[in-house]
Amino acid sequence: MPSNVTPPRGMRDFLPADKRRRERVLSVVRDVYRAHGFDEIETPVVESSEYLFSGLGGDNEKQVFAVLRRGLDDEALRAASSALELADLGLRFDLTVPLARFYASHRAELPTVFRSVQIAPVWRAEKPQKGRYRQFVQCDIDILGEAGQLAEIELISATTAVLAALGLDGTTIRVNDRRVLLGVLSHWGVPAELHDRALLEIDKLDKIGVEGVAAQLVSIGVEAPGIADQLAQLGDATWDSATASPPPAWLDQGAFGDLLALRAALPEARLVFDPTLVRGMGYYTGTIFEVAHPDFSYSLGGGGRYDGMIGRFLGTDVPAAGFSLGFERIVDLVELDDADDDGLVVLYDKAVAPVELLALQKALVSRGEARVRLQKRAKNVGGQLDALAAAGFRRFVAVRGGEAPDDLEVRSLG
Amino acid sequence: MPSNVTPPRGMRDFLPADKRRRERVLSVVRDVYRAHGFDEIETPVVESSEYLFSGLGGDNEKQVFAVLRRGLDDEALRAASSALELADLGLRFDLTVPLARFYASHRAELPTVFRSVQIAPVWRAEKPQKGRYRQFVQCDIDILGEAGQLAEIELISATTAVLAALGLDGTTIRVNDRRVLLGVLSHWGVPAELHDRALLEIDKLDKIGVEGVAAQLVSIGVEAPGIADQLAQLGDATWDSATASPPPAWLDQGAFGDLLALRAALPEARLVFDPTLVRGMGYYTGTIFEVAHPDFSYSLGGGGRYDGMIGRFLGTDVPAAGFSLGFERIVDLVELDDADDDGLVVLYDKAVAPVELLALQKALVSRGEARVRLQKRAKNVGGQLDALAAAGFRRFVAVRGGEAPDDLEVRSLG
Repeated sequence: MPSNVTPPRGMRDFLPADKRRRERVLSVVRDVYRAHGFDEIETPVVESSEYLFSGLGGDNEKQVFAVLRRGLDDEALRAASSALELADLGLRFDLTVPLARFYASHRAELPTVFRSVQIAPVWRAEKPQKGRYRQFVQCDIDILGEAGQLAEIELISATTAVLAALGLDGTTIRVNDRRVLLGVLSHWGVPAELHDRALLEIDKLDKIGVEGVAAQLVSIGVEAPGIADQLAQLGDATWDSATASPPPAWLDQGAFGDLLALRAALPEARLVFDPTLVRGMGYYTGTIFEVAHPDFSYSLGGGGRYDGMIGRFLGTDVPAAGFSLGFERIVDLVELDDADDDGLVVLYDKAVAPVELLALQKALVSRGEARVRLQKRAKNVGGQLDALAAAGFRRFVAVRGGEAPDDLEVRSLG
Repeated sequence: MPSNVTPPRGMRDFLPADKRRRERVLSVVRDVYRAHGFDEIETPVVESSEYLFSGLGGDNEKQVFAVLRRGLDDEALRAASSALELADLGLRFDLTVPLARFYASHRAELPTVFRSVQIAPVWRAEKPQKGRYRQFVQCDIDILGEAGQLAEIELISATTAVLAALGLDGTTIRVNDRRVLLGVLSHWGVPAELHDRALLEIDKLDKIGVEGVAAQLVSIGVEAPGIADQLAQLGDATWDSATASPPPAWLDQGAFGDLLALRAALPEARLVFDPTLVRGMGYYTGTIFEVAHPDFSYSLGGGGRYDGMIGRFLGTDVPAAGFSLGFERIVDLVELDDADDDGLVVLYDKAVAPVELLALQKALVSRGEARVRLQKRAKNVGGQLDALAAAGFRRFVAVRGGEAPDDLEVRSLG
């Protein structure tokens, strides 16, 4: 065996302190979404290739970890014209394709308006790099079966409540509407068949700037003289709920009216109209949004309306809107009270009988201790106490044998 | 798309009520193990083939869901002499191999005596059948680095506390020791090289009976005249902590002495000596145990000492003992208070403005409501209320618009 034993490339182990921190964040997210009427569901980590490679996942489909068919014989191996033919399952790359599959499987058992929450890992065979992992947790809420704007309002309201409960106050919601974007493209004279590709280019605005995007648009065949100026104008046409001004005449007034209604319905949220907001996935059909925090340059999550997708496996249209929080980013940002400061160490002498130790542990647990660790006293007890303090323990009792639980003095560590 | 859209064969979706039930059981298990000093860890769902197919998994290695190498070209496909050669990862089939890999990766960051708890899914490509799933949750605790019997005592003590917290009182722990079993085989004159295979046959005692096992033993070359009588005698030689009697002279007195000490250290647990207890996995080296409940014919979990295994990837011996609870069985058995009786439905008229609805929801959540579902009033409101009651809601408020939150009357459902 090699001396360098590691988890698979791009994936992480979680040691006790990390795991506890993740579970605590997860627990807050779960409770707040539940309070707002979202019901948690779970699907298997793998889905049939048929659903994974259905085109709903865009580029993510290229990053599937594919699972070999069981019981493959030599003949099947020889007959395969590509490796993927040997796979019948794959690890999910998002929680939206599984939700569409779940909804098609269980429609009859779910309420007419179904609010789901999923907090679960997904897998992508991306090139591993700092902050990017091949297994990571997504946290998605979705409202299925609600065509009205109440869906978007509930999604934003519940998510800002989650962020506030995690101490991430002061978030801003950047909003736009795919219909606004398509209206702008038409206003520019971009032909409909180029809309999807043009949106992908505009999505790069904050990375490559106006000149870069303009060059890309020309390269895909968008002939719009002075487009750089217009892009700059688009970037300027922001509307902030704190500093409202009349919308530019060239905006799709219907879709923009919906955004105004959204702002009116969420007076406590800070909504910012950002006409350059695109969001990458092709399946959005209406309002789109991203949540930003003043302290961070990247978004903490986003979502929007995607009416055409959930019904794909069901064979009928289902209105849908969703919001996905970046769980991994949030875990890194959130400051919780020290997760491990509730532990008590029972430092015992070698001679103490196990039966006595266990009875003592039991008594301490019944008394309400959340975490009791038995530990044999080391020769270098000072160093041992320092190590325990460094590991997050704050209290200990020393047991030499024969003490009644009530006689033990709880002492401070470190 | 086919009309019959299902999760992958042998795997399950969890709808909201199921998911909630599972999370509640998980939360009790997690809290009680934590109170007893076990630290939760998590590893990726996949491990390298190198570790999965290292021989530690026994027959489970045949049931691995293997994951295709990324970026396989035609040439690699043609060059492969078996499908498994195309895989470099696999979904874990248990939590013990990942624990051994984790320990080798992080030994320096862990306490000398490391108590781990893992509650996580594993995957096996078994033939699907009632009660057997291809993805299921295991719940393992392990104590690494403790050679003394305190490890076994803590494992049993913590696990009986978990079962009691779940309302599964009255459990019995069947105990045996691999050294006792090997001593019996030697007493019978079974040659050492046949011990492992002989144990696998004795493990079938409750399925195929004494005569069946005797026939199997003869078939693998164990020449022991009168072995059927001796097997019957072995089956009779049980010792119960409630009705102690002197051990038969042919038992390994050292190992049996350890079992007596285990009984003495756990006066409140009901320990039963069962010399026919084998447990399937080949890696056990000392005490083994299973937990039985009077109401159920199958065991709720089991474990034992396995000193030779955890250090395999590390390259050094590490004493270890573990206990695995059958999470799926326990979820089916446990009776919790109705998990969904804390929900409140806000039944609103179509005309109520979203801004008012959301403010109301927010007020109710701040007041401590755990689950507030907004729902539009249907024409057939009686049927709607019945459906909500059937879905586990017990209370509702009717909103027509303009009410202050404090004015709303909470009414009973169903």
